[in-house]
Amino acid sequence: MEIEDTFAEAFKMYIGRYMITAMTRRWAFLSAQESKGLGMSATLGPGEAGIESEVRIDQSPDHRPGYILDVGHRDKDQLEYWLVARIRKGALPVPTTSVFDAMPKDVLRYQIDLKGTPIQLFGDGYEEEVEKYGRILYRIPKMDGFFHVETKFGVARGIAGGNFLILGESQAAAMTAAEVAVDAMKEVPFVFNPCAGGIAASGTKVGGRKYGDAVATTNDAYCPSIREKVENTRIDAGVNCVYEVFVNGLYVESVERAMKIGIEAATTVKGVRKISAGNYGGNLGKTLIPLKKVLNLG
Amino acid sequence: MEIEDTFAEAFKMYIGRYMITAMTRRWAFLSAQESKGLGMSATLGPGEAGIESEVRIDQSPDHRPGYILDVGHRDKDQLEYWLVARIRKGALPVPTTSVFDAMPKDVLRYQIDLKGTPIQLFGDGYEEEVEKYGRILYRIPKMDGFFHVETKFGVARGIAGGNFLILGESQAAAMTAAEVAVDAMKEVPFVFNPCAGGIAASGTKVGGRKYGDAVATTNDAYCPSIREKVENTRIDAGVNCVYEVFVNGLYVESVERAMKIGIEAATTVKGVRKISAGNYGGNLGKTLIPLKKVLNLG
Amino acid sequence: MEIEDTFAEAFKMYIGRYMITAMTRRWAFLSAQESKGLGMSATLGPGEAGIESEVRIDQSPDHRPGYILDVGHRDKDQLEYWLVARIRKGALPVPTTSVFDAMPKDVLRYQIDLKGTPIQLFGDGYEEEVEKYGRILYRIPKMDGFFHVETKFGVARGIAGGNFLILGESQAAAMTAAEVAVDAMKEVPFVFNPCAGGIAASGTKVGGRKYGDAVATTNDAYCPSIREKVENTRIDAGVNCVYEVFVNGLYVESVERAMKIGIEAATTVKGVRKISAGNYGGNLGKTLIPLKKVLNLG
Amino acid sequence: MEIEDTFAEAFKMYIGRYMITAMTRRWAFLSAQESKGLGMSATLGPGEAGIESEVRIDQSPDHRPGYILDVGHRDKDQLEYWLVARIRKGALPVPTTSVFDAMPKDVLRYQIDLKGTPIQLFGDGYEEEVEKYGRILYRIPKMDGFFHVETKFGVARGIAGGNFLILGESQAAAMTAAEVAVDAMKEVPFVFNPCAGGIAASGTKVGGRKYGDAVATTNDAYCPSIREKVENTRIDAGVNCVYEVFVNGLYVESVERAMKIGIEAATTVKGVRKISAGNYGGNLGKTLIPLKKVLNLG
Repeated sequence: MEIEDTFAEAFKMYIGRYMITAMTRRWAFLSAQESKGLGMSATLGPGEAGIESEVRIDQSPDHRPGYILDVGHRDKDQLEYWLVARIRKGALPVPTTSVFDAMPKDVLRYQIDLKGTPIQLFGDGYEEEVEKYGRILYRIPKMDGFFHVETKFGVARGIAGGNFLILGESQAAAMTAAEVAVDAMKEVPFVFNPCAGGIAASGTKVGGRKYGDAVATTNDAYCPSIREKVENTRIDAGVNCVYEVFVNGLYVESVERAMKIGIEAATTVKGVRKISAGNYGGNLGKTLIPLKKVLNLG
Repeated sequence: MEIEDTFAEAFKMYIGRYMITAMTRRWAFLSAQESKGLGMSATLGPGEAGIESEVRIDQSPDHRPGYILDVGHRDKDQLEYWLVARIRKGALPVPTTSVFDAMPKDVLRYQIDLKGTPIQLFGDGYEEEVEKYGRILYRIPKMDGFFHVETKFGVARGIAGGNFLILGESQAAAMTAAEVAVDAMKEVPFVFNPCAGGIAASGTKVGGRKYGDAVATTNDAYCPSIREKVENTRIDAGVNCVYEVFVNGLYVESVERAMKIGIEAATTVKGVRKISAGNYGGNLGKTLIPLKKVLNLG
Repeated sequence: MEIEDTFAEAFKMYIGRYMITAMTRRWAFLSAQESKGLGMSATLGPGEAGIESEVRIDQSPDHRPGYILDVGHRDKDQLEYWLVARIRKGALPVPTTSVFDAMPKDVLRYQIDLKGTPIQLFGDGYEEEVEKYGRILYRIPKMDGFFHVETKFGVARGIAGGNFLILGESQAAAMTAAEVAVDAMKEVPFVFNPCAGGIAASGTKVGGRKYGDAVATTNDAYCPSIREKVENTRIDAGVNCVYEVFVNGLYVESVERAMKIGIEAATTVKGVRKISAGNYGGNLGKTLIPLKKVLNLG
Repeated sequence: MEIEDTFAEAFKMYIGRYMITAMTRRWAFLSAQESKGLGMSATLGPGEAGIESEVRIDQSPDHRPGYILDVGHRDKDQLEYWLVARIRKGALPVPTTSVFDAMPKDVLRYQIDLKGTPIQLFGDGYEEEVEKYGRILYRIPKMDGFFHVETKFGVARGIAGGNFLILGESQAAAMTAAEVAVDAMKEVPFVFNPCAGGIAASGTKVGGRKYGDAVATTNDAYCPSIREKVENTRIDAGVNCVYEVFVNGLYVESVERAMKIGIEAATTVKGVRKISAGNYGGNLGKTLIPLKKVLNLG
């Protein structure tokens, strides 16, 4: 089993972080899933989103069970648009939900103000600003009571594109290793994985060779199924499947730590031939994360 | 318990219907959830979407477990954009998935051609058109093999806005009745419910009274929490919570049947005071569905 | 990939089949899981049990969502004891549940009468026999209303021990193949799989070589981890993991059909080296199911 | 809303506490559910069992995801029998599992030795004692590798029968309050709830009035459906449904704390008329837990 001497190429992303709570854990989870949806892949539509972790009642402002979500976008305006849309479509309509800002102060860059957005306007004048739990909230009437939502949501300049690639001798081996990795990484706070089930089957390269206008196209160099057709294939003999595990996060240290834990877990699975990482030759991202470095973390 | 003599005001919507299959039921479900996300509320962003039903292996083209999803939008171009985005972001990146058109022929209006969309372009020239399972598919290389996706997806003119309102003496009664209704309605094919967990807490009215430019604002007439402030409140004494159950679908008959089953199930729950339905006075939608009519269905 | 020319050795088992319904699908499922628990492995305690399938409201006597369970035991008295205990502990205490007999008439051998069991006695004289849905039920008061349970439950002489073994080049390959098989087999009615997640990691042989008094001990011949120490190992070079998929059922035809579907699905997974089946040399069971035969089924 | 001035009558129970880990969280959970099954109600068969909490990889001996379970029985021999059976049937056959003792030292009374039980004997001489993670484990070959299980499991004298009753004006209100309570109580360690979904619909009284030989029969005094027939009914006018929430645990302090949190959460739900507690007049249990006392905890 080889750890390739390469690096994940990460870049800066605007990130929001919020907590959805509800009467029961089940309703909080249903809301979190809806709010997180369409959150894979930065190259289209609603940007990225992931459920970071569960929150116990002693960890939430309103003493109810909940989930922390992170949403990200490379474009500032798009982040604002989609953070609002994710709360508007993923939480406001769901029974008994409330939404709180969960951005740590030390990385806070600026705040998105809900005033004038479809969330505040939804109240049609019946909404009120109230102080509760030491926070300023909108209290917006809905049919089952009031929807409480913080008036402002913090934004950080975080990290997108932390990742590693699992090259397996079989699809089963690569997937099992990826699942083991994703579960293990759950212990690290302040990071999120935008993929459904935590695993990406579709690596991408920037732009296209044949389709020059495309924003992103298949990472042909890592597709075993066309190995014969691709000049610069990175697929060695014996490798038949590749999965990618992404880690975005507020702190580069958290991203690195999650990568370390994930890689170490993945390599416990038999049939993994190599660990590599997705990058663009170092030209795109500002943050290069060498695999050797993360594996040497204390 | 009263059934109000009113009607659900439904309108025409462009609807696509597709099936996601995967190696295991679990991966098909994770993909379906991601693809369905942000699918509540027609008034913002990605339109509506819902998981219609589970598919057994003897019911899918590739003999694998799967789910049928429906996506809808009032705007034709928006439907095309978001159907493509939901497949691109919700299925293509997910391990082992395939996506098939599932539109019945008798309601097919036209087809969305994936040629030139980010899905086909993702192949960067390595994609091929193949005939498989009696269908024409794109075979697009991804890191775990090939992504198979039908080249064209049918669109119907279906029904949005089938609905009924459950007015309960308590939040618990209204929610329990809504849950019972949503589970019961699962037996009807060709309909979908866009809400997370199937229940809407945020009824809407078109536009706003105070905020004139808003697309949709809270249905104040049905908000018990502001009953005192709303002139034309529809909340009688004794009602303390309202939930709405939506039904969209390909056929008005299916929508009516699902409403009948849902209402009959909801009214078995103690603490339901009244069943009503959301409408806009009959001015907005072309399809008025009287509650009395659906309850008299054979 | 080789299909070994061998047979699954099945034997007769007393089987009961019942349906748990509840107000919502979620409560029916929670009850079914509790009632099914401790249902793996015939050699100890509560015998075998499995959740066969989901039931829609139009398929249940009381028009509520539910699940069908099968429970089995080789010993007639033990079956009676544990069928009663599984209903008493797995359904009676759970909110809103009812339990109905679901034994098809054509295989019915005799009926277990709840009279005098801890279920009927639970009523302490407040229970009543009522006719409902064309059945005779006990109506037993509990704190949230009444528990309805059929007064008699049918028993059949069914089949236990239908099975096949998946020998994989890696743990990941064998497990993935087993998962694919288990999901595929879900389309066959009247069979059940007693294992958690449908997969057995612990094959057994009857009795013990070293521990002569043991009822069942590890199937050493199929343990790759001790291949070097076992004289008559069945583990060829290149095999590193084995999983077993069990199928019990009311009809030998259903068991055979499920085996066929499962084996065909398992062999689509790369890294499976061989399919075999568990047997005891043909001395224990009365029903020998050759793999070649099931694979030739139409 | 009234808190009745009464007490929960708890009694001593032998309790074991163990951790199941597996390759992925999903397999750990499937095993935990199977192992916990048939764990409601102390009056029959396998005693009580519950899943206490999730365990992250940095909290488990083998750095894998897992769950902590508690099992209890009033009878010492029965506890030993069923703790062994729950591990034998609920964990040993499940892919990739390991089982560790999780009993805190300060309450450890004695240890159950697996030597000579069906778990150790399963190895048929191929099992070995190994030292790993600072523990003494059996390493028992199974078809997917080795099953690691601690050789000895600690037993404590803990508390059974902590509980409170939720008397609701409707079934929906009582159930919703119970769900809210159960979710809230999840923050307290060292306690477990044996009920499926955490809620008991079947209160019991010791013995029977009419059926004198019965071990336990319906708690008729708390059954609204037979209020008219029961002389000493405790169901006031306006109460139509009762649910009971149980809390067992290693420490009386933890049980009290969980009761406090649960009751406080339950009483946030509209439609709850009264909180009471199940007791037997103080004659059965050695530990009386007054509701007023727990609500006054700091």
